[in-house]
Amino acid sequence: MIPHDDRGLLLGDGLFETMLALDGDLPFIAAHLDRMAAGCEVLNLPFDRAQAERIVREAAPAAGRFAVRLTLTAGSGGRGLDRPAAPVPVLFAKAAPSVPPTTPATLIIATTRRNEGSPASRLKSLSHLDNVLARAEAAAAGADEAVMLNNRGEVACAAAANLFWIREGRLFTPRLDCGVLAGVTRARLLARHDVEEVVAGVEALETADAIFLTNSLIGVREVSKLGGKEFAPHLLVGELRST
Amino acid sequence: MIPHDDRGLLLGDGLFETMLALDGDLPFIAAHLDRMAAGCEVLNLPFDRAQAERIVREAAPAAGRFAVRLTLTAGSGGRGLDRPAAPVPVLFAKAAPSVPPTTPATLIIATTRRNEGSPASRLKSLSHLDNVLARAEAAAAGADEAVMLNNRGEVACAAAANLFWIREGRLFTPRLDCGVLAGVTRARLLARHDVEEVVAGVEALETADAIFLTNSLIGVREVSKLGGKEFAPHLLVGELRST
Repeated sequence: MIPHDDRGLLLGDGLFETMLALDGDLPFIAAHLDRMAAGCEVLNLPFDRAQAERIVREAAPAAGRFAVRLTLTAGSGGRGLDRPAAPVPVLFAKAAPSVPPTTPATLIIATTRRNEGSPASRLKSLSHLDNVLARAEAAAAGADEAVMLNNRGEVACAAAANLFWIREGRLFTPRLDCGVLAGVTRARLLARHDVEEVVAGVEALETADAIFLTNSLIGVREVSKLGGKEFAPHLLVGELRST
Repeated sequence: MIPHDDRGLLLGDGLFETMLALDGDLPFIAAHLDRMAAGCEVLNLPFDRAQAERIVREAAPAAGRFAVRLTLTAGSGGRGLDRPAAPVPVLFAKAAPSVPPTTPATLIIATTRRNEGSPASRLKSLSHLDNVLARAEAAAAGADEAVMLNNRGEVACAAAANLFWIREGRLFTPRLDCGVLAGVTRARLLARHDVEEVVAGVEALETADAIFLTNSLIGVREVSKLGGKEFAPHLLVGELRST
């Protein structure tokens, strides 16, 4: 249980990571802890990496495929926006069974925008309501996920995934300054493949040969539909999925 | 205490209100409950207004000046962004002593922007990290409050207040679609005075005769400084403060 004066609860002041656990193994834990450490620097919060790692490892069940969510809040504080002089963050982790999707994803374009003008748009922060609203738009339209544009109309990401697209054999993904979380799977793809980080409008998706989503739980997930437009399976996405 | 799977805690999925309690009296409780009810409609959450009112009245001490914060979370949920089919919100309230400021406020312009492209920018939501970051910028600069612009560069609000300015005897405030919370004190001023709701850049503040902040706890607070520019006390602000 968390106290009523926790700043994560009251103000969304904190961060989280969701990572894959396979039979107790956490293949990407270092990248997730690195990202949380970097986010704590942006938010000016102390981060006990050893404690975070211990909590995550304890939460990961020995057998099965799980999503382990690590949450860091800015801890208890007084009334209002200002933090206490020496905030004491709260860390906790919880595992939930995770079944990877077996079908391609259907997308809509959300009306809820990504806030490219806030450092929080590059963090996996507890202030996640815009993503909740975007996903709710997708659910209301019978789609799996929502594409979020930023306020300039540039493609940023999906509600809970990074976005990539393919055109004439070339791979593209939005630049981080479009208001994009530096995804762990996104970074892995960028390190292994020739991906162009670009600023692009929605027409880049609409005229793409293929679109896919990435995150730590789904890996690479192909997109079959964006609004009214359908996409046929693409060889390169199949290859990326299996690597 | 709040459970670890609360969506307010995990995702900033919820709303709050901060209202003034004077010797147990809650002069503007109806306006605050109206706003929370409207926010719940936007977020598609049920709202038990009678319960909310009871909780607030119970939290308000019989003597003294207090800020009573009412918090509504979307309640417990499973993993991920999607809400359960029938969310059961959690409501709680807490009072903290509130001393109105006796000095005018000093302001800076924050680099953290307001997300005009999200419905949440017009709500007092638990996803409040952008405001926390803007206020931290003010504190780091030795100022009291931060002016937040939206991504179009238009003036929106302060981190925890609405913004007004005066020019040649006329009153101005940003339009709600600039990414502005419909403040309870803001609405009261608009009902009683001839205020123009406008879309304006930062130069409107820099060339104003006076600037002031409003919220439920401070009422009207004059601004003495914006960045390097100083403002002399203005007769009209003094009149507004005393009404």
